[in-house]
Amino acid sequence: MTGIDTAVERAEEAGAKWRAIPAAERATILEGVADALLKHADELWPVADAETHLGEVRLRGEIGRTASQFRLFAEVLRDGGAAEAVIDHADPQATPPRPDVRRMNRPIGVVAVFAASNFPFAFSVAGGDTVSALAAGCAVVVKAHEGHPRTSDLTASVVRQALPDPGLLGLVHGFEAGGPLVRHPLVTAVGFTGSLAGGTAVRRLIDQRPDPIPFYGELGSVNPVIVLPSADPATVAAGFAASLTLGVGQFCTNPGLVFVPEVGGFEREIGDAVAATTGGRMLTAKIHDGYLRAVDLLAARPEVARLATGAAGAAPDAVTPQVFTASLEAFADGLPELGEECFGPAAIVVKYRDPSDLSAVLPRLPGSLTATVHAGPEAEDAGAVGAVVQVLQRLAGRLIWNGWPTGVAVTWAMHHGGPWPASTASAHTSVGAAAIRRWLVPVAYQDWPAALLPPELQDGNPLGVPQRVDGRLRV
Amino acid sequence: MTGIDTAVERAEEAGAKWRAIPAAERATILEGVADALLKHADELWPVADAETHLGEVRLRGEIGRTASQFRLFAEVLRDGGAAEAVIDHADPQATPPRPDVRRMNRPIGVVAVFAASNFPFAFSVAGGDTVSALAAGCAVVVKAHEGHPRTSDLTASVVRQALPDPGLLGLVHGFEAGGPLVRHPLVTAVGFTGSLAGGTAVRRLIDQRPDPIPFYGELGSVNPVIVLPSADPATVAAGFAASLTLGVGQFCTNPGLVFVPEVGGFEREIGDAVAATTGGRMLTAKIHDGYLRAVDLLAARPEVARLATGAAGAAPDAVTPQVFTASLEAFADGLPELGEECFGPAAIVVKYRDPSDLSAVLPRLPGSLTATVHAGPEAEDAGAVGAVVQVLQRLAGRLIWNGWPTGVAVTWAMHHGGPWPASTASAHTSVGAAAIRRWLVPVAYQDWPAALLPPELQDGNPLGVPQRVDGRLRV
Repeated sequence: MTGIDTAVERAEEAGAKWRAIPAAERATILEGVADALLKHADELWPVADAETHLGEVRLRGEIGRTASQFRLFAEVLRDGGAAEAVIDHADPQATPPRPDVRRMNRPIGVVAVFAASNFPFAFSVAGGDTVSALAAGCAVVVKAHEGHPRTSDLTASVVRQALPDPGLLGLVHGFEAGGPLVRHPLVTAVGFTGSLAGGTAVRRLIDQRPDPIPFYGELGSVNPVIVLPSADPATVAAGFAASLTLGVGQFCTNPGLVFVPEVGGFEREIGDAVAATTGGRMLTAKIHDGYLRAVDLLAARPEVARLATGAAGAAPDAVTPQVFTASLEAFADGLPELGEECFGPAAIVVKYRDPSDLSAVLPRLPGSLTATVHAGPEAEDAGAVGAVVQVLQRLAGRLIWNGWPTGVAVTWAMHHGGPWPASTASAHTSVGAAAIRRWLVPVAYQDWPAALLPPELQDGNPLGVPQRVDGRLRV
Repeated sequence: MTGIDTAVERAEEAGAKWRAIPAAERATILEGVADALLKHADELWPVADAETHLGEVRLRGEIGRTASQFRLFAEVLRDGGAAEAVIDHADPQATPPRPDVRRMNRPIGVVAVFAASNFPFAFSVAGGDTVSALAAGCAVVVKAHEGHPRTSDLTASVVRQALPDPGLLGLVHGFEAGGPLVRHPLVTAVGFTGSLAGGTAVRRLIDQRPDPIPFYGELGSVNPVIVLPSADPATVAAGFAASLTLGVGQFCTNPGLVFVPEVGGFEREIGDAVAATTGGRMLTAKIHDGYLRAVDLLAARPEVARLATGAAGAAPDAVTPQVFTASLEAFADGLPELGEECFGPAAIVVKYRDPSDLSAVLPRLPGSLTATVHAGPEAEDAGAVGAVVQVLQRLAGRLIWNGWPTGVAVTWAMHHGGPWPASTASAHTSVGAAAIRRWLVPVAYQDWPAALLPPELQDGNPLGVPQRVDGRLRV
């Protein structure tokens, strides 16, 4: 426990100095972290590969992505819009008279981050939660994922070299560290990427605090794909098989449900494509066992039949991609269980007769990070698309057209969230520029002396940030 | 239960049509509601007065405020910034290639609103939660407060006349209605203004859902006031006594703790000012009994002494304003209990020796909606102000200079929130333009056909809303 207390107390102290540094200077420091990560890529990837079996290409790519995340948040800080500066001048003539009120976002305090298993860089110690919290002006204490402790230590040491104070990035290890971290009175918010069970446990811990703090968790997603009759079966099958098996299916955006027309050869093409895939070794023994158990449970369900199985590949303990099939009616009978995520390269192909039949079943699916539509030239399915889209945009945070959900661009517009269990806070995202908002809280200053106002809220706008003044947004 | 199911199902249906109406048309409808409320003010206030004893002047003023809230959200809709439209064009040259991603906010679905007792118009059936949810494109089902059922019915009928579909504003009555409403599968978010106990119960109900939904609650606030040595004792005392007793102390922003220098006559002036006040009849028998019980408990605490008591006034069952006193050390010994809100016209005056002594005690207070500083010309207390402000802006959502927390301006910049228990979601506000954000969820569209994009996300920007395009905010 002492290690946790020390990490949180150091973070609190380091955070007080960090949030006093102007945003533009914090931006430069974040770019320094990006440089450090790239500079140490040759050391970082082999350590991660030994722990995760993800291979050099993927891991180098992921280090690049992690560095880009630091660069994006440097841009966000320089832009200044995340401060959301709003100025309402006093109106003494109003009934009742209106005071001068100015609001902006401030860092929430020390953020606890639970690292994910499946992205040892991009969703781990130096991942999206950490960089968005640092950008917000918060210090972070990460609970390392047990699947890659050495990668976590090495990453932390690389990042710390580029930070003004190593206390800004605390790191604690061990499953038992989670409880005391979440309960610590100086921790003001929690970020989490992991399983539904793990996230539910963290939520329970937060509820037991005298002051339940915000919980931003990404807990699971089945990512439905709707294939309309106008889509091309061979293209869909090839894309699906590739997306399903990317990273041995260990993506939170892995497509777990594919709805296809019962005619047109979609089922057969998908079966053939998956049969031609190769699996691989999973991240940890626990994830490996969990996948085998989930697939066995699925195979035993009366509503589904096995459609195809890929090859295992040469790796020790490699798992095989698996795809099952069910009619829409049988699938509906098997809900809610058949709508649950199976973490790994497994999916159900659900066959429908008419696209209009989908509208009754799709709303019964749990919330997802993504939902995908495949279709030919739009006009052909205009009616079907309209109805399906109405349902999908209440079901998922990102809608994809003729593409695949795996791969999440790190940009201003990205939204990586959705209704429970995709996210515990559906108004927020864990990827993209808006992820910073989770670690910011607004503070309004009423009739505050000009000399004591933060620069973002001063009339002269010395920092040149976007301001909304008396109702008008100015950039 | 049938009544609740019917209300929610009607709301779901009405909401589907409502969110399809362009924002500018929804704005006009909201202005129609404002007009209807003002037109019916002569009928509304007497019904509310019979149930709440708040009097004509206050209630007419509150109807005006309620109407202004509808007008502010009409402005918000016409501005279009709440959609938060973000467009990132594709970048096929990037590594990895970047798709076209566009994000905007969409209505979350049916919102359940728990009305407050203390503002029968502005925080009730037609209050801030309802209007911000309607503005967001959501239908609402309100659980009426038991303290003013007839006012609730009459308000609902007035509002419904101005809405395109009465199902957009459902209304259910009775303490037992809360559970089934929160558990209803079609309810997607909950707004709540009320007690810590009530809010904790609602949170527990939400946790028991298979899909815990967002909970935006305002549960209590003690609103500390820091009086620095340079402030004028008579001015502070007069302002404090007026704020403490406004509406018989039944404001969520009522100042419950005042920190004053032990020298300078602050304590005596405050005692005299409160002794000269008059109390009144409270909103309900339950609130009345709760106030008496809380004051008795406070009076029995060894850390505090009674400083002054106001007059009861002529009203039946009227309560008296009460003010207690404690040294900073004794107060600190009595935490956390002495930091809890006592709903009604009661407060503790805490005497400190040196402003620097406050920094150790203030962080131990619970989160508040507001924190106030009283000081003379700034320079005199520059050092003290700096240290105190650092603490206060992590403790409260709104900081007030030489004013009083009661009275919350309905503007773009207002923030009415704070750390728990002031709010269950400290990134959000329940008053002011940003309150709409609680009922919106982002949806990102990836490589989506232009013809199927919402107008807010089209390249031509046909609605002229603020858009962030490839990282640049444009208005």
